Amino acid sequence: MSYAKPLLDTYPRTVNVDAGVLAATIDALNDCAQACTADADDDLSEQNVTEMVKCIRLCLDCADVCTATVGVTSRQTDYDANVTRLLLEACVAICKSCGDECDRHARMHEHCRVCAEACRRCEQACRELLDAMK
Amino acid sequence: MSYAKPLLDTYPRTVNVDAGVLAATIDALNDCAQACTADADDDLSEQNVTEMVKCIRLCLDCADVCTATVGVTSRQTDYDANVTRLLLEACVAICKSCGDECDRHARMHEHCRVCAEACRRCEQACRELLDAMK
Amino acid sequence: MSYAKPLLDTYPRTVNVDAGVLAATIDALNDCAQACTADADDDLSEQNVTEMVKCIRLCLDCADVCTATVGVTSRQTDYDANVTRLLLEACVAICKSCGDECDRHARMHEHCRVCAEACRRCEQACRELLDAMK
Amino acid sequence: MSYAKPLLDTYPRTVNVDAGVLAATIDALNDCAQACTADADDDLSEQNVTEMVKCIRLCLDCADVCTATVGVTSRQTDYDANVTRLLLEACVAICKSCGDECDRHARMHEHCRVCAEACRRCEQACRELLDAMK
Repeated sequence: MSYAKPLLDTYPRTVNVDAGVLAATIDALNDCAQACTADADDDLSEQNVTEMVKCIRLCLDCADVCTATVGVTSRQTDYDANVTRLLLEACVAICKSCGDECDRHARMHEHCRVCAEACRRCEQACRELLDAMK
Repeated sequence: MSYAKPLLDTYPRTVNVDAGVLAATIDALNDCAQACTADADDDLSEQNVTEMVKCIRLCLDCADVCTATVGVTSRQTDYDANVTRLLLEACVAICKSCGDECDRHARMHEHCRVCAEACRRCEQACRELLDAMK
Repeated sequence: MSYAKPLLDTYPRTVNVDAGVLAATIDALNDCAQACTADADDDLSEQNVTEMVKCIRLCLDCADVCTATVGVTSRQTDYDANVTRLLLEACVAICKSCGDECDRHARMHEHCRVCAEACRRCEQACRELLDAMK
Repeated sequence: MSYAKPLLDTYPRTVNVDAGVLAATIDALNDCAQACTADADDDLSEQNVTEMVKCIRLCLDCADVCTATVGVTSRQTDYDANVTRLLLEACVAICKSCGDECDRHARMHEHCRVCAEACRRCEQACRELLDAMK
């Protein structure tokens, strides 16, 4: 149960963008970070771990970037649109790379299919927030 | 939409504890981390910010501890019960402190009431996972 | 005592950029993340905390972005220059904003002077790594 | 160049423990977190990656726990000794596990020897801070 939307709705000042779009992005980022952490570990447990090295690396990066972006987008006070935008663009880039790599393993490893879905949803949500910020 | 449960269900080896309890805890930790980050920022925007200092500090700690625990509990490979247990105990302690402090402000600040709820749910989930690990 | 350079020197494959520049950037990012976390807390303890709200917020963002960038730049395996570049640009932007704000308080609060120095050094190091990546 | 000690020396209130011991621990935690992130990546690039799986997993955990502990120990305002103590104990436990595993690979992989050193130093520093807190 996410608290992103209720906490935006009770923010004491004015939220800088559409609260619904922002909350959906925060949720997608948070879910994607956890999915990537878990998928990197799933990959480590596979017998063909040597073929999963790129996937593990991208999942670790994606978790780091999404976690930082949850932090920055969860803060509304003295908001800096420039930093948020660059971070969201970094998220779009790593979610695309990570989602593509996970997709390559999706037929063989169901956990990669799940993680690819998390990355796609997060990439899309970040794009929508970038649009809403214009 | 959390991917914690689907990713535990597709883990290639055996999950060390009940997957339902574990997934519920991962979700509660992830939600609590975001709630605490957002609530610290809400507090910063309040006019009586001087009275919110302790709440901000505890929220920041709670976010850090919960985020680390999401990472550690999301990994199943070569699982170390001892580290997990100590971290979950640290989570219980900080969620208790942070929840208590948020509760003190709940009447005046609705966002603190929401955050207290996130902390209580997370504290409870961590206790249940600790029980399930016995 | 940083291990960034020794660990780049013992990396089993080829490092993608100049190892000295990369290690210096990782160190600057790591130091800046800690400085910003500590300075946000120092600000919270000041009597004029209401005037420090913007500084606290930017310090929290700066810590998050620098921490994620330590993670991504510490990984060399299957390196993705595009993501690294966007993250470094986000670091430059937040270190600039945070350093400027800390500088505004540097005369009154010595801890803000120290944190501004950490932000400047990190901004400079990220710019140098961006140059080295060209 | 660490800013931990200068920022403790300029903290506006009283620091709760010996500032020298605390700053040394913060530095050791920060260095260990980076070393573990880098070593996990070094392991991923080794030809015998299947034998490094446990090492990678422990390094990822150690980085997460140390990073959270940098955050909590860098904050002095409204300090909660109980949470700090549990986190430091979790650090001691993961640094011990991770250091032991890295040591097992130290002869074959120089980067594991370096990471073991980072873990030993961090474990020792956390123990000293725990002693200083008594």
